[in-house]
Amino acid sequence: MTAPRDVCVIGLGLIGGSLLRAAARAGRTAFGATTSTVDAERAAADGFDVVSTVDDALARAAERDALVVVAVPLPAVAEVLLAVTTVHPACRLTDVVSVKAPVSAMVRRLAPRARYVGGHPMAGRSDSGWSAGDALLFDGAAWAVGADDGVDLEVWADVARLALDVGAFVVPASDEEHDAAVARVSHLPHLLAAVLSAVGADGGPLARTLAAGSFRDGTRVAGSRPELVTAMCEGNHAALLPVVDEALGRLGAARGSLASTGSLGVTIRAGHEGHTGVVEPVPELVADLSRPDALAVLRELGRRGGRVTGLLSVDSNDENERSR
Amino acid sequence: MTAPRDVCVIGLGLIGGSLLRAAARAGRTAFGATTSTVDAERAAADGFDVVSTVDDALARAAERDALVVVAVPLPAVAEVLLAVTTVHPACRLTDVVSVKAPVSAMVRRLAPRARYVGGHPMAGRSDSGWSAGDALLFDGAAWAVGADDGVDLEVWADVARLALDVGAFVVPASDEEHDAAVARVSHLPHLLAAVLSAVGADGGPLARTLAAGSFRDGTRVAGSRPELVTAMCEGNHAALLPVVDEALGRLGAARGSLASTGSLGVTIRAGHEGHTGVVEPVPELVADLSRPDALAVLRELGRRGGRVTGLLSVDSNDENERSR
Repeated sequence: MTAPRDVCVIGLGLIGGSLLRAAARAGRTAFGATTSTVDAERAAADGFDVVSTVDDALARAAERDALVVVAVPLPAVAEVLLAVTTVHPACRLTDVVSVKAPVSAMVRRLAPRARYVGGHPMAGRSDSGWSAGDALLFDGAAWAVGADDGVDLEVWADVARLALDVGAFVVPASDEEHDAAVARVSHLPHLLAAVLSAVGADGGPLARTLAAGSFRDGTRVAGSRPELVTAMCEGNHAALLPVVDEALGRLGAARGSLASTGSLGVTIRAGHEGHTGVVEPVPELVADLSRPDALAVLRELGRRGGRVTGLLSVDSNDENERSR
Repeated sequence: MTAPRDVCVIGLGLIGGSLLRAAARAGRTAFGATTSTVDAERAAADGFDVVSTVDDALARAAERDALVVVAVPLPAVAEVLLAVTTVHPACRLTDVVSVKAPVSAMVRRLAPRARYVGGHPMAGRSDSGWSAGDALLFDGAAWAVGADDGVDLEVWADVARLALDVGAFVVPASDEEHDAAVARVSHLPHLLAAVLSAVGADGGPLARTLAAGSFRDGTRVAGSRPELVTAMCEGNHAALLPVVDEALGRLGAARGSLASTGSLGVTIRAGHEGHTGVVEPVPELVADLSRPDALAVLRELGRRGGRVTGLLSVDSNDENERSR
């Protein structure tokens, strides 16, 4: 085993700040930078290694061949990529942005020499900024890692190792499959929470007083910072649009049934079956990246709902697939 | 102060079972009955006073002039009302069903001599049956109590006293206002959770693996028993339909904006404002039911999002309204 690679985190909000803490906690050498003076000061005051500018952090990453993690909201990614191209164009690069195809396209355009493998930890909170961060945020969470043909397997291993080190499990997925899945399970939930919150508020004080668990749960994520949620959902508009249409179709069908026969049984039963349906055991894999078909194996694992829980070291030949 | 009235709970599922426990815990003399053999046996095994049949329980309620609480799902209410008319037609009667206008109409038709005041505790769980019950279920919860003109104020006080004794606060509301409010904050959330759950399940195993907090929260109530949720939502179809249309309108507008300009800012901001908007202090009132305009005062309090936190005893003249 060689010493684990240094980690350079650009952006120290909820996710970047949690990652810097979690990487340090896992014994990794980690440093960060952010354009937010507030977050930088707080992170430094908490004893973390904060470099004064993004350029300086990238220069240090170049010296140490560190893994650079872009942990800024989607609208700020382009600026970081331009800095990468200027300071350290061939860096090992990943990100934690909630859409993958648009970020991959941006990397190809703005930082074409970067050794990029996209990532997306499925962990969040309604609060934001360094102060909201938590070294345990990724514990037990899924961390999607890009598995399109052509990705650099050495960097893939870097990204997967970091995700595993901070307590997550790795879910390999192509950019397109990732974006389609998160449109359903992350962006649509935010959109429906916004709709429910607004309709509830239109009911005035009596409705607010009578609101209980179902409303509270259904609207919780409407408390997140609206500009972050908007950027996240808009960034995935191509994949989100057909999913919104599915939701409109189902809600419209419920409306029609309610208006004509007064019945909602089909809708409620479909929702209950989706919630409680038989779940296959989750396949787990210690990935062997030396296989010629490694990426295809990883993508297939992800499609089956599986997880990478470890990486086979180069000098070992055991493969270990099991179900739990 | 006279001794508090006995409580007769018909139906010992989640809500009725919790109420029997909570009333006993508050020192009230409480007994119950249910047509479910399983729930009856479990409640008796837990040491509660379970009468063998609903008719026998109503006969005992007649002897003691007890408050009868109908705690069965909406589709089973008619049968209980027929028993009331047969055994104890002029009983003090309330219920815990999630819609009020349809139950009031049923009472007028099937048990016209009953001294009925509707109720609805805003507390629930995805589990059901006696075993899911909890003496603390109503602690801190809103308990809507019907306040239409003509209700019997003596029974109103009985219902409010029971709600307060089990730890709830009382929210007075007309049947129509109640049903419109819960369509927004209870029935629409269940419908949207069902839609989200089904759309998520259509994403297959990868989507399920990547689902995290926003999806979990947004679909939690889809785990409730579908026949109970269906009966609850269908029972309020008149009030629910325009609310579903509002949700469709907002989601459709978001869809149009996403498809044309790629923007979701208006939708997300409206949801965030609904969630975090300035909330007026909640007015609280110790109700004086001897006032000639008592019901109008109560309804106005409910409209303002207020709560009844106590009842003025008949021989006292202090009224106490404060904000917190």
